[in-house]
Amino acid sequence: MAVKTGEQYLEELKKTKPNVYMNGERVEDIWNDPRFESTKKILAINHDFAFEDAHKEIAIVQSPQVDEPVRRITNHIQATMEDSLLKLDLTRDIANRRICAWCGTNVMSLVWAATWETDQKYGTEYHQRLKRFHELSQKNDWDSSLAKMDAKGDRNVRPSKQKNYPGMKVVKKDAKGITVSGCKVHTSYGPCTPVMTVMPCRAMTEEDKDFAVAFWTRTDAPGITLIAKPSPNADHIDMPMQCPMSSAFGIVEGTTFFEDVFVPWEQVFLCGEYDMAALYPFYFGNIQRQSKCSCLAGHSDLVAGIAALVADVNGVLDKTHIQDKLTHCMQMAEVAQGCAFGAGAAGKMHPSGVFMPDPLKVNAGLNYIKELTGEHIQMLHDIAGGIIVTMPTEMDYKNPKLKKLLDFTLAGNEAYTTEERMRALYLCRELAATEFTGYYMGWGVNASGSPHTGHILVRSLYDLDYRIGIAKEWAGIGASREWPGHCSSHRVWAGN
Amino acid sequence: MAVKTGEQYLEELKKTKPNVYMNGERVEDIWNDPRFESTKKILAINHDFAFEDAHKEIAIVQSPQVDEPVRRITNHIQATMEDSLLKLDLTRDIANRRICAWCGTNVMSLVWAATWETDQKYGTEYHQRLKRFHELSQKNDWDSSLAKMDAKGDRNVRPSKQKNYPGMKVVKKDAKGITVSGCKVHTSYGPCTPVMTVMPCRAMTEEDKDFAVAFWTRTDAPGITLIAKPSPNADHIDMPMQCPMSSAFGIVEGTTFFEDVFVPWEQVFLCGEYDMAALYPFYFGNIQRQSKCSCLAGHSDLVAGIAALVADVNGVLDKTHIQDKLTHCMQMAEVAQGCAFGAGAAGKMHPSGVFMPDPLKVNAGLNYIKELTGEHIQMLHDIAGGIIVTMPTEMDYKNPKLKKLLDFTLAGNEAYTTEERMRALYLCRELAATEFTGYYMGWGVNASGSPHTGHILVRSLYDLDYRIGIAKEWAGIGASREWPGHCSSHRVWAGN
Amino acid sequence: MAVKTGEQYLEELKKTKPNVYMNGERVEDIWNDPRFESTKKILAINHDFAFEDAHKEIAIVQSPQVDEPVRRITNHIQATMEDSLLKLDLTRDIANRRICAWCGTNVMSLVWAATWETDQKYGTEYHQRLKRFHELSQKNDWDSSLAKMDAKGDRNVRPSKQKNYPGMKVVKKDAKGITVSGCKVHTSYGPCTPVMTVMPCRAMTEEDKDFAVAFWTRTDAPGITLIAKPSPNADHIDMPMQCPMSSAFGIVEGTTFFEDVFVPWEQVFLCGEYDMAALYPFYFGNIQRQSKCSCLAGHSDLVAGIAALVADVNGVLDKTHIQDKLTHCMQMAEVAQGCAFGAGAAGKMHPSGVFMPDPLKVNAGLNYIKELTGEHIQMLHDIAGGIIVTMPTEMDYKNPKLKKLLDFTLAGNEAYTTEERMRALYLCRELAATEFTGYYMGWGVNASGSPHTGHILVRSLYDLDYRIGIAKEWAGIGASREWPGHCSSHRVWAGN
Amino acid sequence: MAVKTGEQYLEELKKTKPNVYMNGERVEDIWNDPRFESTKKILAINHDFAFEDAHKEIAIVQSPQVDEPVRRITNHIQATMEDSLLKLDLTRDIANRRICAWCGTNVMSLVWAATWETDQKYGTEYHQRLKRFHELSQKNDWDSSLAKMDAKGDRNVRPSKQKNYPGMKVVKKDAKGITVSGCKVHTSYGPCTPVMTVMPCRAMTEEDKDFAVAFWTRTDAPGITLIAKPSPNADHIDMPMQCPMSSAFGIVEGTTFFEDVFVPWEQVFLCGEYDMAALYPFYFGNIQRQSKCSCLAGHSDLVAGIAALVADVNGVLDKTHIQDKLTHCMQMAEVAQGCAFGAGAAGKMHPSGVFMPDPLKVNAGLNYIKELTGEHIQMLHDIAGGIIVTMPTEMDYKNPKLKKLLDFTLAGNEAYTTEERMRALYLCRELAATEFTGYYMGWGVNASGSPHTGHILVRSLYDLDYRIGIAKEWAGIGASREWPGHCSSHRVWAGN
Repeated sequence: MAVKTGEQYLEELKKTKPNVYMNGERVEDIWNDPRFESTKKILAINHDFAFEDAHKEIAIVQSPQVDEPVRRITNHIQATMEDSLLKLDLTRDIANRRICAWCGTNVMSLVWAATWETDQKYGTEYHQRLKRFHELSQKNDWDSSLAKMDAKGDRNVRPSKQKNYPGMKVVKKDAKGITVSGCKVHTSYGPCTPVMTVMPCRAMTEEDKDFAVAFWTRTDAPGITLIAKPSPNADHIDMPMQCPMSSAFGIVEGTTFFEDVFVPWEQVFLCGEYDMAALYPFYFGNIQRQSKCSCLAGHSDLVAGIAALVADVNGVLDKTHIQDKLTHCMQMAEVAQGCAFGAGAAGKMHPSGVFMPDPLKVNAGLNYIKELTGEHIQMLHDIAGGIIVTMPTEMDYKNPKLKKLLDFTLAGNEAYTTEERMRALYLCRELAATEFTGYYMGWGVNASGSPHTGHILVRSLYDLDYRIGIAKEWAGIGASREWPGHCSSHRVWAGN
Repeated sequence: MAVKTGEQYLEELKKTKPNVYMNGERVEDIWNDPRFESTKKILAINHDFAFEDAHKEIAIVQSPQVDEPVRRITNHIQATMEDSLLKLDLTRDIANRRICAWCGTNVMSLVWAATWETDQKYGTEYHQRLKRFHELSQKNDWDSSLAKMDAKGDRNVRPSKQKNYPGMKVVKKDAKGITVSGCKVHTSYGPCTPVMTVMPCRAMTEEDKDFAVAFWTRTDAPGITLIAKPSPNADHIDMPMQCPMSSAFGIVEGTTFFEDVFVPWEQVFLCGEYDMAALYPFYFGNIQRQSKCSCLAGHSDLVAGIAALVADVNGVLDKTHIQDKLTHCMQMAEVAQGCAFGAGAAGKMHPSGVFMPDPLKVNAGLNYIKELTGEHIQMLHDIAGGIIVTMPTEMDYKNPKLKKLLDFTLAGNEAYTTEERMRALYLCRELAATEFTGYYMGWGVNASGSPHTGHILVRSLYDLDYRIGIAKEWAGIGASREWPGHCSSHRVWAGN
Repeated sequence: MAVKTGEQYLEELKKTKPNVYMNGERVEDIWNDPRFESTKKILAINHDFAFEDAHKEIAIVQSPQVDEPVRRITNHIQATMEDSLLKLDLTRDIANRRICAWCGTNVMSLVWAATWETDQKYGTEYHQRLKRFHELSQKNDWDSSLAKMDAKGDRNVRPSKQKNYPGMKVVKKDAKGITVSGCKVHTSYGPCTPVMTVMPCRAMTEEDKDFAVAFWTRTDAPGITLIAKPSPNADHIDMPMQCPMSSAFGIVEGTTFFEDVFVPWEQVFLCGEYDMAALYPFYFGNIQRQSKCSCLAGHSDLVAGIAALVADVNGVLDKTHIQDKLTHCMQMAEVAQGCAFGAGAAGKMHPSGVFMPDPLKVNAGLNYIKELTGEHIQMLHDIAGGIIVTMPTEMDYKNPKLKKLLDFTLAGNEAYTTEERMRALYLCRELAATEFTGYYMGWGVNASGSPHTGHILVRSLYDLDYRIGIAKEWAGIGASREWPGHCSSHRVWAGN
Repeated sequence: MAVKTGEQYLEELKKTKPNVYMNGERVEDIWNDPRFESTKKILAINHDFAFEDAHKEIAIVQSPQVDEPVRRITNHIQATMEDSLLKLDLTRDIANRRICAWCGTNVMSLVWAATWETDQKYGTEYHQRLKRFHELSQKNDWDSSLAKMDAKGDRNVRPSKQKNYPGMKVVKKDAKGITVSGCKVHTSYGPCTPVMTVMPCRAMTEEDKDFAVAFWTRTDAPGITLIAKPSPNADHIDMPMQCPMSSAFGIVEGTTFFEDVFVPWEQVFLCGEYDMAALYPFYFGNIQRQSKCSCLAGHSDLVAGIAALVADVNGVLDKTHIQDKLTHCMQMAEVAQGCAFGAGAAGKMHPSGVFMPDPLKVNAGLNYIKELTGEHIQMLHDIAGGIIVTMPTEMDYKNPKLKKLLDFTLAGNEAYTTEERMRALYLCRELAATEFTGYYMGWGVNASGSPHTGHILVRSLYDLDYRIGIAKEWAGIGASREWPGHCSSHRVWAGN
């Protein structure tokens, strides 16, 4: 069976020998290095999840490609509205309970659609190659990292106009394959993945055609170097009381350098068809951002739960101002999930067989929830109080003399022991007042694309002219006042 | 065929002879009174709409009950998710183009479900009666007004505890029927409707059982008196340039008094089954509020269109601060519609055959957009400038001497004539700076239930305990740290 | 004595015979025309106010110029911080209690400073002329209207580049004076004022120098035509219960055309010194906008009071969600007034003897409160409920038969009669759901300059470079990490 | 001379031998422990500041009590409006440039007023004792920590009703002094201070009188134990590039336990006069919160500067969406400072000689800015991009091989070197994505009292009844419609 347990997967992973640096030193044995421990935990969690009785019914799906069970959220092309909604349900719940659902299916689905369109136009064979990669991925139960965002140099100058564009480019082509160089930033999980999917991050013009390149590669291919950013609170993962989240899981980040890396043609999905480059970020800003809505809905659930727990240990859960703040948080979660579902309900089939959500509703909903990330953190401070900044550490609490003082003085709601109150406050502190906060904010504000990107997408997708036309009718401008002769749902989608 | 044109419908309506007062005087002949002209226009528009080529495909549906075409938005029980989504598409577009879609289907659908449940519990025959009313309504192509909100007296005292509760109550029952008295406020369209649907507006206890009553009645039944509130800008509907909206349509409001009104049993849907009373506002706060999301999405579209048009006639449409405000408005529209669609996608079948949207997403989405009503109006002032308050009137512009001065001095963007600029500004003024503004705000803030109601619903429907449980797991409180054994979509719906 | 009662002032005013049109017809006798009744009421109120025991101590001040008592808010040059703060206290209270304080002193003060600077640079005599106008104004206790905003034509093209710029321009100069033509919009009160102060509304270049003109004129000077926009709810000022505000006062708006109007040199304050034109809007955006902060603080107080009253008649004043909304409104008022006071505390003396508030705090505070105008109106709808849109009219209530029904059914909190409840609801309705709403929004959003203007001013006045410098120090960029050698309060003021 | 340099002060401080724990272990020699290094740096900075040419003019003031120069922000009783405004200017600038101005003067000033009132009522001698403490403090140039917030136990139960109230209480009194026990949380700087000022944090009833106690004590008095919370990013203060703020300064937090600590009467300021206890938090919520407005204005300046710098190194400073966000940040700063100044301008003299700002404006302004803390951090993520979460560490950059790769790939705006860009991004990261973020949020949200406290204060101080009265006049309720006979500035202050 294709689906691997966490243990099986980690065992397989040891075969990958990436060239990784951390804190300025080469990592000799990544799979036994304690600084990668928490990342390995989340790798395993994401596999084991699919074996739990409660989830497996929706977490596992029989693949039409390989006719084997695969993990829905990782290796199943989204082919129906139902697929889309089930993915969103899973994503929200996993984001609430394990922070990150790592929804690789979205990347596979978008490359599926983009390669199909490229082949239609150029008579190329990229789509078949993608299918083979997909089958490999399914059979090996791979989690692929995504190398999308180029290092950009001067943001005001197009890649082709920069003297030394630092992003990905094709430096050589021959009969066997291509050779690429350049830097991709934000390769989350990258140092701990067997394979990477590499794709363009922007629209390109003919002059940029050397930068229009997509492919997959093994992470330990010669010429690839990764700088691994330690997972959050990496220094404290041995303190499970004080750092309950970071000790349970972590996500190592990567900055990935390609120095003359060879990629055989069978792994190439795009090479020079510059006008197809825009499909990658566009479909990403559609199918991946739909998942992001649900991810942030799940994070809102997490905040609601933590805030309510902290209010309860403080004995103030029933105060109306607390209830109002919690209600606001519930609303955030439901609006985000509502828009994700709504984008599913308004979605369309891409001719390649991928079900595409409505990008307008995706991006409107995502803008909404992204803009509330700061409020999440602020609400936690507001409800918990200053103590999450000033309270003694787990090590203090473990000193018996101090523990006695603290058990007495930091007691709160009688329904909880002081240790339980401290555990709740530590949890809140970790989310709102540690390095983890930075990751949480990053996942909210910038992951899957910046808020500004969302604004641009909404502006470009919304049919404002139609509404100006209606305003003109109301005003009696440009025509006698008659009702226009068409009505439709105005579902806008650039995909066809 | 059951579907009537506006003309046919208005002709039929003349048979209804309601007892109506306006501005302190009895209305002798409502169907020829100019003060009701604009309301008759919208009545007709809502019928004619279904005959337009562009809409009829979705606006008309073959009724499974009477096997005749009926208007979807008025007389079709919502039976599938597809029904729900088509209704939302229509509603948004009509709200944009004709302000109000008058979606009577929602009331019929909710009574359908409520009577079914009442019969299940009490062995009554209400559901059959509702079906007969529904068939009558379909065959006559009726628009029914809704008399739901009781005059409430002291809001802090339950109906049964008030000395003189002014809301609806049963004062007599006999073999033939019931006799009711009391006042219903906010009966929009009421004075111009052939029939009214009357229902409870709140949960009731056993002591309140005389107030637990629902039925339909002809509007001109003996004992019914309506005070009609003139439609907005009623004094100016002969000025189509200055009041383009109010001259095109209007909605007369009603305060409806029942003084010993007899209702035969075959028209009664609830009488004394007090524990069923809550179903009415609950299903209203679900199926009707879903439509309200789309209605307000359409109003956001309207505001976006008018704001863009005004910016254009002023020559500033391309300024970034204008574009940012318009984008914000687009986002409002799409989030509201996104949540409406999302509530559809997360909906469930009620055992009576009504498709019920997810009330949590409905109410979260509706809270979101309701709270932005003031911003809509403010944005119009912001973009248009002070001129919508200070500009000369249509009568000034019709004076040739002044017209000459104004054509010169009020010119803006050269792409428009001064008259066109003034028309755009008048339109904006009507929405943002006249009595119409009050109606617009009322439709946004309070129609289909107040924002506070939405907050209460979200709070009660959201599964906060589940999220507190997850927080406890993270914190290691109350159990060893193991992942919980269940996962589901947590779609919450009180209906079963 | 210079200060006139309302009656005395109105008597004097009859000597003014302006050329006024309303609704397309020439107004034959403005002082006996009922449509100007409510405007005359506010004119009188603003005079009588100064005679009331409670106010006269601060409302009246002994003028250093004419050594007579004058009205502080109308005819006293702001010469100290104390002057500034007393003006703000008065303004807030009057705005709460009479809507508009008509603070003419600000215009006089800003022209005082601008003419002084012009004379300093050009050796002209404008400042002496302004002083004479000021003395005339004090001795006659005049209220002058302000004609500042030009009709602008194409907003993207400078005045001098437009074929037919419709704003104010000098068309002839001779030994005796200048002749001007052009249109000024938004001349509030204009048709009912004895004199007008005319000034530029924007910065000018040398090519625009014919548009750089400021002067005063009698409103009935030959060649001036005003189109009067009726005061809000002018059709209903005979219904004091339903329209308590509009029946008590009104502000007629004006669009003012100058067709070859002669202005003698002794009335001219600027003529061709184009580089001085910017002083007018800049000082306006300083001294007048400070008053606007307090004006909108007073309006916030008004909204808080009305909202609380409506909540009380509805019996829900003690509900926490109501209290929270009211608290938010209180905060709005205090922040606006706080910034107005703060701008006073951070102000500086202009060398001409005018006390100038800090423009940065003025504009930041005004941006804050302007952006909340929509929330004000929305809160009133939210707290009052739909009834302010649907309730019967005063005429209904005066019909004895209906009154009996209404007294019973519309009762609320027992501490109030039904009539009192209706009066409270009518007041709320007038502010939130009638043409008055449009004026209220206009006064909030656009009066004294648009929100966008405020943003531009804040951006240009704030010393961002200083803060970037500090960031560089923190980051260790561009210098060794040493603390910079200067510290100051960084009060920014462009005035010297 | 009383004013000590940082070096002199630290030398003196070595005489203090507090009983301190950190991370579960007793700190043997706090003054040589590297974990306290950054806190000592800020102690010294706050002294040296007063010697810099640029600041000394306002930072130093001649004390009327000891007739020696003292540091204004630490040891000068605020005696005039001018004092108040100068303090605010200094506070904002220091908060921008050194994060914390540690404004001890506020605590001294509020105890000055509270002891004066207590003596007036009870004929006690507390005020003389406070004066002696103040003189000692001035002559020694002490910085005193503040021990105000009690550990609270069950927040729903009054101290006297709790079985084991963990807060401060008097356990014994005799001729020489009092003996106290209990825990104070949030004693910022506490472990590194020579003396502590201890005071009540809430209003008390007669039954609570044992908890009504205020005094000063040496920090190393027998029976006092402090748990020191390490300053933020304490593990990385040796990385000045990556942690430019934490390496430059830090604030150690304290949880302070009093176990039978003896306090001689000459150090006691309150003991049992329970009705005076409320004066402490009330005046704190006035004079200290005014400083907090300026502190947060300075933090807004800091965010504006860092955001602008990051935008500049990224090459996008001139983009309109960036400029809009920066303008919003500028406005936050100016509104906060505006309200602080406004509260000064509306302040009053307390009869004891302390100048008291207007608490209504203080708390309205502080609510405003506190509620925007989350936005600050979110804006930094938004403008900087995901790189502040994923970028390589300083140690990576110091590896020559990686440095070469990074210098090429992470280049941005050509006006900066890659190292400079990285420094700017690290600075932004430290503020927005590390443990420092938690402190920043804590200083914003909870320091000087929670947002909810501010809401309660605004609600209780604002004269809503006056505004309801005006609404009644407008509505014609309860009186004939006449203008009321009083007007005043309605400056509300509970202090006299």
